Amino acid sequence: MNKRRVVIIGGGFGGAFTAKYLRRHAPRNWEIELFNSTNYFVFQPLLPEVASGTISAPDAVTPLRLMLPGVKVRMADVVDVDRDAKKIHFLQGSKRIPLCIAYDDLVLAVGQQTNLTRSPGFYEHSFCMRNLADAHQLRNHVIQCLEHADVTEDLELKRRLLTFVVAGGGFSGVETAGELVEMIHRTLQFYPNLQAKQIRTLLVQRGKRILPELSHRLAEYARKKLGKRGIQVLLDSSIRSATATAVYLGDGTRIDTQTLVTTVGNGPRPVTETLGIELQHGKIPVDEYLRVIGNEQVWSLGDAALIPLVTEPVSASDYAPPTAQFAVREARCLAKNIILAQKGKPLTRFSFRPKGSLASIGNYKAVAEVFGVRLSGLFAWLLWRGLYIGMLPGFSTRLRVALNWLFDYFLPRSIVQIANNERPATYYRCYAPGDVVFRPGQIVDGFYTIVSGYLESRISSSAPGEDFVRLLGPGDHWGERSLIGNFETRGLLTAVEETRVLILKQPDFSNLRAAFPALDEYFQRVSEKIYAPSLRKGANSTGKKVSRGIQP
Amino acid sequence: MNKRRVVIIGGGFGGAFTAKYLRRHAPRNWEIELFNSTNYFVFQPLLPEVASGTISAPDAVTPLRLMLPGVKVRMADVVDVDRDAKKIHFLQGSKRIPLCIAYDDLVLAVGQQTNLTRSPGFYEHSFCMRNLADAHQLRNHVIQCLEHADVTEDLELKRRLLTFVVAGGGFSGVETAGELVEMIHRTLQFYPNLQAKQIRTLLVQRGKRILPELSHRLAEYARKKLGKRGIQVLLDSSIRSATATAVYLGDGTRIDTQTLVTTVGNGPRPVTETLGIELQHGKIPVDEYLRVIGNEQVWSLGDAALIPLVTEPVSASDYAPPTAQFAVREARCLAKNIILAQKGKPLTRFSFRPKGSLASIGNYKAVAEVFGVRLSGLFAWLLWRGLYIGMLPGFSTRLRVALNWLFDYFLPRSIVQIANNERPATYYRCYAPGDVVFRPGQIVDGFYTIVSGYLESRISSSAPGEDFVRLLGPGDHWGERSLIGNFETRGLLTAVEETRVLILKQPDFSNLRAAFPALDEYFQRVSEKIYAPSLRKGANSTGKKVSRGIQP
Repeated sequence: MNKRRVVIIGGGFGGAFTAKYLRRHAPRNWEIELFNSTNYFVFQPLLPEVASGTISAPDAVTPLRLMLPGVKVRMADVVDVDRDAKKIHFLQGSKRIPLCIAYDDLVLAVGQQTNLTRSPGFYEHSFCMRNLADAHQLRNHVIQCLEHADVTEDLELKRRLLTFVVAGGGFSGVETAGELVEMIHRTLQFYPNLQAKQIRTLLVQRGKRILPELSHRLAEYARKKLGKRGIQVLLDSSIRSATATAVYLGDGTRIDTQTLVTTVGNGPRPVTETLGIELQHGKIPVDEYLRVIGNEQVWSLGDAALIPLVTEPVSASDYAPPTAQFAVREARCLAKNIILAQKGKPLTRFSFRPKGSLASIGNYKAVAEVFGVRLSGLFAWLLWRGLYIGMLPGFSTRLRVALNWLFDYFLPRSIVQIANNERPATYYRCYAPGDVVFRPGQIVDGFYTIVSGYLESRISSSAPGEDFVRLLGPGDHWGERSLIGNFETRGLLTAVEETRVLILKQPDFSNLRAAFPALDEYFQRVSEKIYAPSLRKGANSTGKKVSRGIQP
Repeated sequence: MNKRRVVIIGGGFGGAFTAKYLRRHAPRNWEIELFNSTNYFVFQPLLPEVASGTISAPDAVTPLRLMLPGVKVRMADVVDVDRDAKKIHFLQGSKRIPLCIAYDDLVLAVGQQTNLTRSPGFYEHSFCMRNLADAHQLRNHVIQCLEHADVTEDLELKRRLLTFVVAGGGFSGVETAGELVEMIHRTLQFYPNLQAKQIRTLLVQRGKRILPELSHRLAEYARKKLGKRGIQVLLDSSIRSATATAVYLGDGTRIDTQTLVTTVGNGPRPVTETLGIELQHGKIPVDEYLRVIGNEQVWSLGDAALIPLVTEPVSASDYAPPTAQFAVREARCLAKNIILAQKGKPLTRFSFRPKGSLASIGNYKAVAEVFGVRLSGLFAWLLWRGLYIGMLPGFSTRLRVALNWLFDYFLPRSIVQIANNERPATYYRCYAPGDVVFRPGQIVDGFYTIVSGYLESRISSSAPGEDFVRLLGPGDHWGERSLIGNFETRGLLTAVEETRVLILKQPDFSNLRAAFPALDEYFQRVSEKIYAPSLRKGANSTGKKVSRGIQP
C-alpha cells in the first residue's frame, strides 16, 4: 500500500493501544506518530495506589517509547488542528515556535479532564485523580496533614487535618477512599499523637448507591465493608461548595476538612473544543466505525468520543462507557478500520461486551463481577491484582508492580513526603552579548522583565533601514502584549550586554492581572504610550527609532 | 538523672545519628526532639543514582519517624535561636504563627548549602545535587533534553541539548558525570534520531587532578576510565559564568549547553547566619568535644561545624572533612558528650581515622581505597554497593535499594519524566462568611488580592470601640506591607461574604517587585495613602472607620 502518515493525539489507553495495533498490522512504510504531553503512558487504575504509596510513582507508568517501538513519539502540545489542510500545529521543547505536520489519518484520543468549575471552591481546594502529578500531590498533602496533626496543639485544627472527604462513589472514588484509609491506618504507628478513632473519612455520592457500574448486591457489600473500615458513606448527598477549611454539603452541613478529593465532573479538554466539531454531551460524536461524523479521515475513541453501541442510541447506556477495558477494544477496532478503509474494504462495527468489572476497596479486599459471577473479599482482591498485572504493558513494569505489592505485605508503608522543587515559580535567565532572546513568531510563555543589562528589540520592516528598533533596559518588560492580546511576537530580541531577565509564567501573569486592577491599568497605559505612535502607523513608521524603553 | 530536653536542628547524617545514639544511650525521661524541613533522611551519596534513574526517589530516603523511634520528629522551619533564653522559634504547618520551645541542650546539625551566587548565571541556570528535589529535577531535565533533541530539526539546538557539563571533580561531580553518561547511553535505544557520538559530557575541575580525596594513582585511573566512557575531563579549568544557552570557561571558551550541574561552592545555610555565632570559613567553630566555642549547652557537628582534629589546627586537613562517614562518628561522640556533661564527667575528644573512601564512576566500575589498599574496577564497585547497602538505615530501604540495583542489570532504564504538578504557582483560596482569613501575628507568606467578595480587616486598639476597621473588596490586596517591611500582621481578617482570593507566593512577589519598578512605585503610593492618615497616629485614630479599601 501507499505510504501514509497516521497521527494520533493522546497517549492514554485509547491512543497508545491504537498506535500499538497499527504498528503491528499496518504496512511497515506507514508512519505512525503519537503526540502526548508527557513521555509516558499512565496506568490510570493504579493512581489510587500511587496516592496511597503502595506503588511508587514511576512504576504506575510506562515510557511510551518503550511501549511503542517503531512509533514516532513526540512529547509536544497540540495547539490547533486544521482539518481542511489536514495538518496539525504544535509546540515542542523550550523554543516554542509553532511547528506543523500533515497527516493522512488523524486519531483523536485526547481523553477528558475533570471540570472543577461546576462547584464553587473545587478548582481552588480539591485534589483530582487524573494523572501522576495528581496522585503524587494528594499523597504529599495527606502526609503533610498527618505530620502537622501530630505536632499541633490546636484541637480544632487537628480535627480538620484528620478529616478526609472524597466526592464520588464510582470506581475511582471508592478505590481512592479505601486506599487512603489503608495508608493512614498503616502509618499511624509513626505518629505517636494520633489515634485511629480521630481519623474521619467520608465518601459522598450523589446517587442512591455506590458503584453504579456493579450489581446492587455487590455495591451493598462494598458499602458495608467500607463502613467497617471507618469510611462514612453519604448517599443521596453532594458537595455544594468548598473553602480553604471546609466543605458544604447540599443540605448546608459544614464539614471541617483540609482534604477534598474529587472523582466526578468529567468534561472535554481544551483541545477538543478547538476542533470545530460540534460536541455532544461534551464528547466527539463518532459513527459505529469510530469515524468522527462528517470527517472521513478523522477518527476518535476513548473517553473523548461518544461511541454508539446500538444503531439508534437513546439512553446513556447505549454508548460505550469511559473505561480502560473499552478503550483498548475500541483501539483494536479503530486500527483495523484505518487499514480496511485504505484497502477499500468494508469497515468493522465496534461492539464489545465486557467480561467483568472489579473494584478494590482497600485492606486486601475487592468486589468483582466476572463472567456474570459475583465475587468479594480476598479472592476478588487477588483476582483484581492478577488481572491488573496482566494488563500492564511491559515485563519490567509488571515485575516492579508485583514486587511493590509483595513488599507492601511485609514492609511498613513509607511516609516520605517527596516535595516538589522549592525554587520560586518566577525564574531568571541570563544572556551574553549577541544571544538571541526571542525570535519573531516565537510563542510568548510569560511576562519578562529586565533586571540588569540591555536588549535590542528589532521589528523588521519591508523597507530596508526602516526597522523599528528599541533598546530595553532595567525595569523594561515585554510579553504582556502577546499574553493579553494573544499576539505573536514580531520582534527579534538580542542581548546587547550581559543581561538578566525575570520571568513570570503565563498562567500566573494572567491570574495576577485579572485579580489586581492596578497592574492591568498600568499595562493599558504603557501599551498606548509605546505602541500607539509607531507600530499602529505600520509602514508610515518614523523609521529607525531608538527609545530608552518604557518610562511609566 | 533529671528530665532534659535535647533539641536537634537538622535531620542529615549528623543530626539523625545524634538523635539515634542519644535515644539509645540517654535516660528514657530525656526528651529528644529533632527539627527538619522534610520528614525524611536523605542518603546523600545515592543522589547521583536517583538523578540517573537507577534508584527510584523514595528508596534513596528513609522517613525520620521510622528511623528514629522514641524521638519527637517535627517537620518545621526554625526561624530563630535565642541562646540567652535557651529557646528556639519555629513555624510549622499552614497556619504559620510562630511557635517556640525551650531546650536544655541544643545540637546544630544544619549542614551547608550550595552557594550559587559566586559565579554569574549559576543561580539561574545550574542544577545542584544537594537534595531529593535536585536529583529529581536534573533527571527530568535530562530526559526533556533527550526528548527534544530526538524530534528537533535544528542541528545547533540538538548539539546544545546533547552537551552536558558538570562543574567540580570531587566525589559528587565524578559520580554525577558517570551516572549521567550511563543513563544516557542506556536510554539511547529509545531515541531513534540520537547517536552515542552526538553526546558530549564535560567534567570541569579547578585543580590539577580529580578526586583530591583519593590517592594520585586512583584519581588517574578514574580519569582514564571516565575518558574511555566519553567524559572529557578539563583539569586546571573553571566555569566563569553561565547563560540560558551556554557556559563560559575561565579562558573565555564558550560551550553551548542547556545542562550545567554544579557540585562545588559550599556555604553556610541562612539559619547558621542568624545564630549570632562568629563563623570561621563559613562554619560554626567548635572545640574538640564538639561544643560550640563559648556556649556550654550548644553543640554542633557535620558539614555545618568546623571541627579540629588536632590541638592546634593550621591547614584545612587539620579539620574534619564534610563526609557522611565523619558525620556519623561525630554524632556518636557528641551524643556521648551530652550524657557525660550531664553526669559531670570529663568529655571525650573527637578523633577518627576513616577506613577508606570509595567513588563510583558509572558502568559498574568504581575506585576505592580501603584500609590503605587501592582497588578499582568491578570489584571496587561491588564493594561500594555492598558498603552502601550496609550503611542504609532500615531493612526495607536496604532491600529496596538492593533490588533497584539488581533490576538495573537486566531491565531497561526508565525514561519516564515525572513532571511536577502543572498547576500555576499563583493559587486561589475561598472563604465562607465568618471564616478567619488571617490572625494577628500570623506570618504573611504571600501577596493576597481579592478576586471577589469582601473581607473585614480589624486592628484592635487598646481603647474599646476604637478598633480600626476597613472593608476590603475586589482588587484590594494585603500582605505587601509585611513582605516589604518584614512587619507582623496586626489585623484580624474575616470574610464578610463568599470571598475568593489570589495568592502570589512571597519569593515570587519579592522577585517581581525588585525587577519591575512600576509595581514597587505603586506599593509606595498605596502604602502612604492608606496607612499614613490612620495608623501612624496610633491611639489618636479617628475611631471606627470603614473605608471601601484601596482606590489607587
